[in-house]
Amino acid sequence: MTRIAFVGLGTMGLPMAANLVRAGHEVAGHNRSPGRTAAFAEAGGTAADSVVDAVRDAEVVVTMLPDSPDVEAVVLGSDGVLAAAGRGALLIDMSTIAPATARTVAERAATAGMRALDAPVSGGEQGAVDGTLSIMVGGAEADFEAALPLLRAMGSTVVHVGPAGAGQTVKAANQLITAGNLGLLAEAVVFLAAHGVDLAPAIEVIGGGLAGSKILDRKSPAMLDRDFDPSFRIDLHHKDLGIVLESARAAGVVTPLGATVAQLMAAARSQGHGELDHAALLLVIERLSGR
Amino acid sequence: MTRIAFVGLGTMGLPMAANLVRAGHEVAGHNRSPGRTAAFAEAGGTAADSVVDAVRDAEVVVTMLPDSPDVEAVVLGSDGVLAAAGRGALLIDMSTIAPATARTVAERAATAGMRALDAPVSGGEQGAVDGTLSIMVGGAEADFEAALPLLRAMGSTVVHVGPAGAGQTVKAANQLITAGNLGLLAEAVVFLAAHGVDLAPAIEVIGGGLAGSKILDRKSPAMLDRDFDPSFRIDLHHKDLGIVLESARAAGVVTPLGATVAQLMAAARSQGHGELDHAALLLVIERLSGR
Amino acid sequence: MTRIAFVGLGTMGLPMAANLVRAGHEVAGHNRSPGRTAAFAEAGGTAADSVVDAVRDAEVVVTMLPDSPDVEAVVLGSDGVLAAAGRGALLIDMSTIAPATARTVAERAATAGMRALDAPVSGGEQGAVDGTLSIMVGGAEADFEAALPLLRAMGSTVVHVGPAGAGQTVKAANQLITAGNLGLLAEAVVFLAAHGVDLAPAIEVIGGGLAGSKILDRKSPAMLDRDFDPSFRIDLHHKDLGIVLESARAAGVVTPLGATVAQLMAAARSQGHGELDHAALLLVIERLSGR
Amino acid sequence: MTRIAFVGLGTMGLPMAANLVRAGHEVAGHNRSPGRTAAFAEAGGTAADSVVDAVRDAEVVVTMLPDSPDVEAVVLGSDGVLAAAGRGALLIDMSTIAPATARTVAERAATAGMRALDAPVSGGEQGAVDGTLSIMVGGAEADFEAALPLLRAMGSTVVHVGPAGAGQTVKAANQLITAGNLGLLAEAVVFLAAHGVDLAPAIEVIGGGLAGSKILDRKSPAMLDRDFDPSFRIDLHHKDLGIVLESARAAGVVTPLGATVAQLMAAARSQGHGELDHAALLLVIERLSGR
Repeated sequence: MTRIAFVGLGTMGLPMAANLVRAGHEVAGHNRSPGRTAAFAEAGGTAADSVVDAVRDAEVVVTMLPDSPDVEAVVLGSDGVLAAAGRGALLIDMSTIAPATARTVAERAATAGMRALDAPVSGGEQGAVDGTLSIMVGGAEADFEAALPLLRAMGSTVVHVGPAGAGQTVKAANQLITAGNLGLLAEAVVFLAAHGVDLAPAIEVIGGGLAGSKILDRKSPAMLDRDFDPSFRIDLHHKDLGIVLESARAAGVVTPLGATVAQLMAAARSQGHGELDHAALLLVIERLSGR
Repeated sequence: MTRIAFVGLGTMGLPMAANLVRAGHEVAGHNRSPGRTAAFAEAGGTAADSVVDAVRDAEVVVTMLPDSPDVEAVVLGSDGVLAAAGRGALLIDMSTIAPATARTVAERAATAGMRALDAPVSGGEQGAVDGTLSIMVGGAEADFEAALPLLRAMGSTVVHVGPAGAGQTVKAANQLITAGNLGLLAEAVVFLAAHGVDLAPAIEVIGGGLAGSKILDRKSPAMLDRDFDPSFRIDLHHKDLGIVLESARAAGVVTPLGATVAQLMAAARSQGHGELDHAALLLVIERLSGR
Repeated sequence: MTRIAFVGLGTMGLPMAANLVRAGHEVAGHNRSPGRTAAFAEAGGTAADSVVDAVRDAEVVVTMLPDSPDVEAVVLGSDGVLAAAGRGALLIDMSTIAPATARTVAERAATAGMRALDAPVSGGEQGAVDGTLSIMVGGAEADFEAALPLLRAMGSTVVHVGPAGAGQTVKAANQLITAGNLGLLAEAVVFLAAHGVDLAPAIEVIGGGLAGSKILDRKSPAMLDRDFDPSFRIDLHHKDLGIVLESARAAGVVTPLGATVAQLMAAARSQGHGELDHAALLLVIERLSGR
Repeated sequence: MTRIAFVGLGTMGLPMAANLVRAGHEVAGHNRSPGRTAAFAEAGGTAADSVVDAVRDAEVVVTMLPDSPDVEAVVLGSDGVLAAAGRGALLIDMSTIAPATARTVAERAATAGMRALDAPVSGGEQGAVDGTLSIMVGGAEADFEAALPLLRAMGSTVVHVGPAGAGQTVKAANQLITAGNLGLLAEAVVFLAAHGVDLAPAIEVIGGGLAGSKILDRKSPAMLDRDFDPSFRIDLHHKDLGIVLESARAAGVVTPLGATVAQLMAAARSQGHGELDHAALLLVIERLSGR
């Protein structure tokens, strides 16, 4: 049993924190909007009124927040995690943020006497609920080992990929590939439709060969049915591609496909589809093609 | 038992024709280079000295040739299939060629009193040997039904996707997606390496989530081991992307990612990697990034 | 005084042929639509009812046609220029076509005992009327020298750029740069407008520095006034970019910006702007950006 | 006669400040490296040992610094311009920085009781020496009018383009177009060379038509002679394209050509050409094309 603080009880954070409770840990949860904190209390957690309250006695602090500025505020701020948590506590930031920010957080945590891991996830809301997330972890090996039992309560694939920031780097690569796969699928669907091909059998046979992918399996129905009810929003993938391009630029890596799909994702957002599922890249390719 | 002529006994064609023999058909095979024809005779087929000899008495003619000009020569030429085969015979062109050429072949076949299907495949040499190809078929429904038993001797997924040319269109979409997936994987690998991430666990965790794909499973080892022994050559994928862009252009479909990956594939070829496996897109991204 | 046949009396061809008449030559003109031939007769030329009639006694044959297939038909066809013109005559093809087609025409002309130059132009309708075209000429030096007096009657800049096909290659490079400049200007205009910048002074100051160009001078008014009355149509520039990409591909040259602007031009066409001036690339960037 | 502080006496700043001295103003100059400050004293200026010393009694403060962080440090820092200058003084930041940073500077200046203009320049070292820079100015009309006499001592084209940040936005658009023109010229040169065209006459005839531009005039000699002695370095243009993409992203503007040329510029840098002139984009296209 570990005393855990969990900050950020959104769509992903709430079921992740609930899985920690279910695994027998004592979890104090906090969210900026009190309704989410109350929902967590109903799920068996302890409601904390502030970050300070949540983290004060915690052995492990988990943060699951929307973007780099949120993490900077909650972790580095004057009433934040580093100011309030005890020396020796372990911070596990599971947000998807810039690798450079993750490295800064780790350095600042070390200065404050804390240990830190960056541990972003993939697998979506369903994976968070089912505890089957993929979790890519950056930081010291010993800290990874210490965190492993907790991470296994939230994910089925938990992998240590390198030093501080490496988890975020891997997540960025993941988001690059998923965005690109969506864009390629959208181009293929518009291409097939324009040629009068029967879409369903065409996608089936393509998916059965070397072009098969999870994106094709899970997102081609959305494209064929034109159902863009979001499981992962354009706005979020747009944010993530910003991280990809910034990190690639910083490392001197040239990513022509990444740059191209980032333009398409930005177009989706500018065209008003920010709240739709990222499969709505289809609409951008259709509009480009005058269809 | 069907009397079949099989023209084009290359890396793919020879094992495909052998599978037809194995399924109990009478197959007369011909290849421009006599050595391949002889190899087919050893595999139980009948050696034919010319296209005319092969197709004269055939109920079904299968062609498996490198590119559109080859199909035009073998099928439409003065000593070609349409000139020599009997009225009512069924032509199944399994080459990967331009959809527009496939439609022309079908029209010319109809004029000559023959029926025609375009039925390109995916799955590579191994799939050809094992008889587990994916086969995407364009043409009339009745002709597809007639061909199905033969096609099932060569492939495990056989799908009718639309009228004449539709098979080639689907194959083009397939090649667009596979090329794009390779390019994205190459960008991700260079990105991860540049950031000092441990590549093997990083690829493992990425492949376990929404970014998972057959290309990632089968081609990331080639990229990590820098082993570009070809299963599908850059030169061939370059040819196929030419078909993709030409067909997209003809249909007024805009494919930004397709255009970008076609540039990368052309770069691979210009940089001297035409004979390497298409996973050698990695070398283009590395060189672009000064690595 | 030279006896000239002029085939193709369109928007460009008619004023070009008229300038040859004005320079004192005997010009027999032919156009597929008789109205244009009649208009040429009014301008002082001799009306010819067919290609054969026009070229029979000509020392020099000038062709000015829309695209490669037109040139192939008019020059290589059974009632075409090579069949009908006298041995030793000089063919000057001023159409904008694929370099590969230009080389084929030159070879076929040589076989037929004729000499040939490819001599595409830039400068638009106004340049054709004023006789101030830029003319880029491929072919043998001696033939260029022989043609120079005639070409100077149509253009103010006449340059020999290399062997057969070189004129078309240079024209292709020209069309690559103009398309790219238009696309960049469109992106800049939308970028400035989105930021609330005063467009007219902004364009003025940009045009005064290193970013200045003829495209900026002549096409920014069209973009700012949203007046896309055509001086050069999207459809034609789309055709030309097809030549650029095909020629680049054949030569193994990688052109990322060329590929990108070709996608934008294709989008303009697919979105229904084919008949507008190529400055209508602005509409593509606006639509992409949701504006 | 105006009392001016000039901070940043680099390649551009030193001759700009000297032109203000020459115009009869009293100019206190400061640069981080004392050698530059001394050089300014030799040119007739007053040497200031610190930013505070320079700006204390100034009516106008001009800053000419490398990048956004430098401006933030010098202007907003605790010993910076806003802390030390008198209320009512006018800050003219002539650095090329992000528009968002320029707007922040303007707001912070207003809070500190100062007025501010962003006034980036184009025209290079020669323009700085000759006093013929193009200057694009953002800020209040009255402040622009007040600054005009000083700006005219440094530039021949001085244009007010909008509110705070607008100068930087126009400069960003300028850098987008110049980078794109360089990339297009590089692609054209490699394309022409690969086809065996005579480069010098080809570039001449292209430059005489609608494809003509200042970049073509000034940078094609560098490309043909392979002389990349820098007048504007790859590293700086790379920085500027970062500003372009970030500002476009913030405004929701999609810039496919901008994104593509930014990749090429990043490649130039990663390939080790950061210290070369931006015409060295040629080397990237050549390497891509295996030449």
